[in-house]
Amino acid sequence: MQGKGKVVLIGAGPGAQDLITVRGARLMAQADVVLHDALVTPEMLELCPQAIKVGVGKRCGKLSTAQAFINKQLVDYAKKYPLVVRLKGGDPMLFGRADEELRALEAADIEVEIVPGITTALAAAAASQQPLTKRGVARSVAFFTSSTAPEHVEPRPVVPDADTLVQYMGGREAIATAQRLLDEGRAPATPVVVVENCSRSDERISRIDLATLAHGLEAAHGPVLVMIGEALAQRAGHRDKQIGLPADDTVHLPHKRA
Amino acid sequence: MQGKGKVVLIGAGPGAQDLITVRGARLMAQADVVLHDALVTPEMLELCPQAIKVGVGKRCGKLSTAQAFINKQLVDYAKKYPLVVRLKGGDPMLFGRADEELRALEAADIEVEIVPGITTALAAAAASQQPLTKRGVARSVAFFTSSTAPEHVEPRPVVPDADTLVQYMGGREAIATAQRLLDEGRAPATPVVVVENCSRSDERISRIDLATLAHGLEAAHGPVLVMIGEALAQRAGHRDKQIGLPADDTVHLPHKRA
Repeated sequence: MQGKGKVVLIGAGPGAQDLITVRGARLMAQADVVLHDALVTPEMLELCPQAIKVGVGKRCGKLSTAQAFINKQLVDYAKKYPLVVRLKGGDPMLFGRADEELRALEAADIEVEIVPGITTALAAAAASQQPLTKRGVARSVAFFTSSTAPEHVEPRPVVPDADTLVQYMGGREAIATAQRLLDEGRAPATPVVVVENCSRSDERISRIDLATLAHGLEAAHGPVLVMIGEALAQRAGHRDKQIGLPADDTVHLPHKRA
Repeated sequence: MQGKGKVVLIGAGPGAQDLITVRGARLMAQADVVLHDALVTPEMLELCPQAIKVGVGKRCGKLSTAQAFINKQLVDYAKKYPLVVRLKGGDPMLFGRADEELRALEAADIEVEIVPGITTALAAAAASQQPLTKRGVARSVAFFTSSTAPEHVEPRPVVPDADTLVQYMGGREAIATAQRLLDEGRAPATPVVVVENCSRSDERISRIDLATLAHGLEAAHGPVLVMIGEALAQRAGHRDKQIGLPADDTVHLPHKRA
């Protein structure tokens, strides 16, 4: 072993403690060290009471840990401890900068394993009971995010083209998405489902349409996922459950008109 | 309760028993009845030794259970048993015809819960250690499938437009995808990762390029997932692990030239 441990990148899922995989939960219970994002909920960390927990969150507008330093920490801990977990919100291979961490670990010749996680789009589809594909209506779905990094290269369109679109961290950025889709000819009445704090005690599901989305969303208090497409039309027999909100709050739409 | 039970749609994940969520595994252990697809592996059914197990698989070219009959069975079992699980390979809200089952259950006024699952694309990304998004290279990913249903409506392009593309059940159909992408101007050298039997004992990972994919894939012996895009370029320091294959088998590329 040459004094080297193993690093496991684990997807924590959307936030609820029991939406991690069985494999992920078992490895959490065995970990010597767990390095976790700011978006990982406190209840996820209850799965590793034995571990040294290291917060390495990068959150917009808050004190952040530079990626290079996270990479270095991963390597340093793996040289000291047998099992190091890198816990990421959602799935580690989607919007998680895993490439940079994998390169650093490979350069240091450290063994890596990856355990997938429930990405928020799928948890939001489950919470809203709204399939992302639908026979005869939608058989493709695209997940995307906006970049605010100035150095970002744009090899493809900002908004991908697929039957169903899911924008991660889509609070403010969803306005531009909606405007672009309307310009491209999507119907103003195209259904939109917004899920805030998916799977958590303060989860909120809102149903609007594309025209309304173009006017913006109310200030969100947590991670916001915006799902757009004909597949998201609410079924006549379906009612959304709202968690953690009084019933009379559910009539407020999450948008403000300009 | 008026003699009515609850139906839980659960995503089994890609096949490995411990890639179901903790919530899914717990509900499986409590289920009275489990209706499962043909793609669900036998080891997943070991999670519900107490349950009545009903196979309702629809598999290309094999004897299938019509969707209407599956819907009826779900309703009928829910009228007789408190907890009925509908176990689907991958995630229930992606390519799972959940819409039809949800409508049937809602029409019968039966309570439904949905537990998301690891969709195969994310398991394949984890198995190949290949992130689907990458800073400066790819920040959108589309999942899609080909339809062979003659009545299928095509509201959007057959191949969606996103930085990274993942085609489900993409064995034979991936040839057309590759040809189309080449026609649209994607580079012949665009990396392609093919994962067969993801997360199972006979998992096979192959790396080719878009030009090679256009010539076709070798006959696959199980579910095939085809991932395409610049984000899938293999890192210099990475080697794929091949499960269940002798080492000398890994040099055979999974394509045959025309």
